[in-house]
Amino acid sequence: MLMFQKEMMLPPYKRGLHLITELIVSEFEELKRIEVGMAQIFIKHTSASLTINENADPTVRSDFEKHLNVMVPENAPYFIHTYEGLDDMPAHIKASLMGSSVIIPVSKGSFNLGIWQGIYLCEHRNKAAGRHLIISAWGL
Amino acid sequence: MLMFQKEMMLPPYKRGLHLITELIVSEFEELKRIEVGMAQIFIKHTSASLTINENADPTVRSDFEKHLNVMVPENAPYFIHTYEGLDDMPAHIKASLMGSSVIIPVSKGSFNLGIWQGIYLCEHRNKAAGRHLIISAWGL
Amino acid sequence: MLMFQKEMMLPPYKRGLHLITELIVSEFEELKRIEVGMAQIFIKHTSASLTINENADPTVRSDFEKHLNVMVPENAPYFIHTYEGLDDMPAHIKASLMGSSVIIPVSKGSFNLGIWQGIYLCEHRNKAAGRHLIISAWGL
Repeated sequence: MLMFQKEMMLPPYKRGLHLITELIVSEFEELKRIEVGMAQIFIKHTSASLTINENADPTVRSDFEKHLNVMVPENAPYFIHTYEGLDDMPAHIKASLMGSSVIIPVSKGSFNLGIWQGIYLCEHRNKAAGRHLIISAWGL
Repeated sequence: MLMFQKEMMLPPYKRGLHLITELIVSEFEELKRIEVGMAQIFIKHTSASLTINENADPTVRSDFEKHLNVMVPENAPYFIHTYEGLDDMPAHIKASLMGSSVIIPVSKGSFNLGIWQGIYLCEHRNKAAGRHLIISAWGL
Repeated sequence: MLMFQKEMMLPPYKRGLHLITELIVSEFEELKRIEVGMAQIFIKHTSASLTINENADPTVRSDFEKHLNVMVPENAPYFIHTYEGLDDMPAHIKASLMGSSVIIPVSKGSFNLGIWQGIYLCEHRNKAAGRHLIISAWGL
């Protein structure tokens, strides 16, 4: 079995959802050596998250961000954990709704995604530094 | 290590949540060869999703669908990505809330699920063709 | 390849979100033998779930529980599956929003989590017995 794992750093992104498929692929040369296997992208943070969604139309990402802000509003009167601002606690909740990792089948050295699928970084904070990822792959 | 991976096609389902455990198992003969390992079911779409939930009472699936439609309503005035209908953008959001894959431990050649657990296809579009899945398993 | 898998039982927890990282680590001696790999924690239930979130401030967990109860309220007039109480159907929905497993990279024999990340048990029922988990790890 082959097993690859390494850390990579994303540049800072503004609050919202961002397509990062190409960035991941360009850092993940080792994928090419896997004929059949799996890959995971994991984010080492609790106020940003990863998901798979539509890769073509930027309004999907902006509509999605608008709706996340309705589902998890900043002005909820019961939030106590607001030490770092009104976006603090909502960011934690959104992070778990989306998830801390995506796991993608690997076929013939590439992510085997649907033609409309891409990897999103979901940045839930108003102001964040670059985010640390761990990219792992295993297979034959 | 054993590593199996193949694509399969689900028949079209109507909008809502559907129990597909038996369908997956019947297509996944290779599972029987894994004594201890893992399996992933991955959906190659961004307007349908997969989750694990209760496998016995159909009202769980219908109540769940009703509540998803409240959490992500079709008439949100801020949705721009509605080119394919009012169900378009909500389908993308619901897909990420549920997730694009489920990952299940495999023991003695079978999914090691709790007795009440089953695999759901969550079809978020009013009208969709059959959905493409990738089923993968690895282990000893 | 190394592949470990075993079942473990959590003690009963009250409704809410609970940090269980140390409990998992203490049961998972086999992790130390993996230099580079992956681990999954899977919950065999449909009314409790697992997620990764902030590991330091208990108000994150209590704020999170409060907001889950707003996103998935108990008094929704359209819920039919309430046989076991008003918390029954909401528990199923919350379980899928959070997810039935977390998957964490393993490096040098330990979970490679961010410094603020921990594993949460999300107990969605008012009264539940201990929960069954399957902990799996694979790698080199």
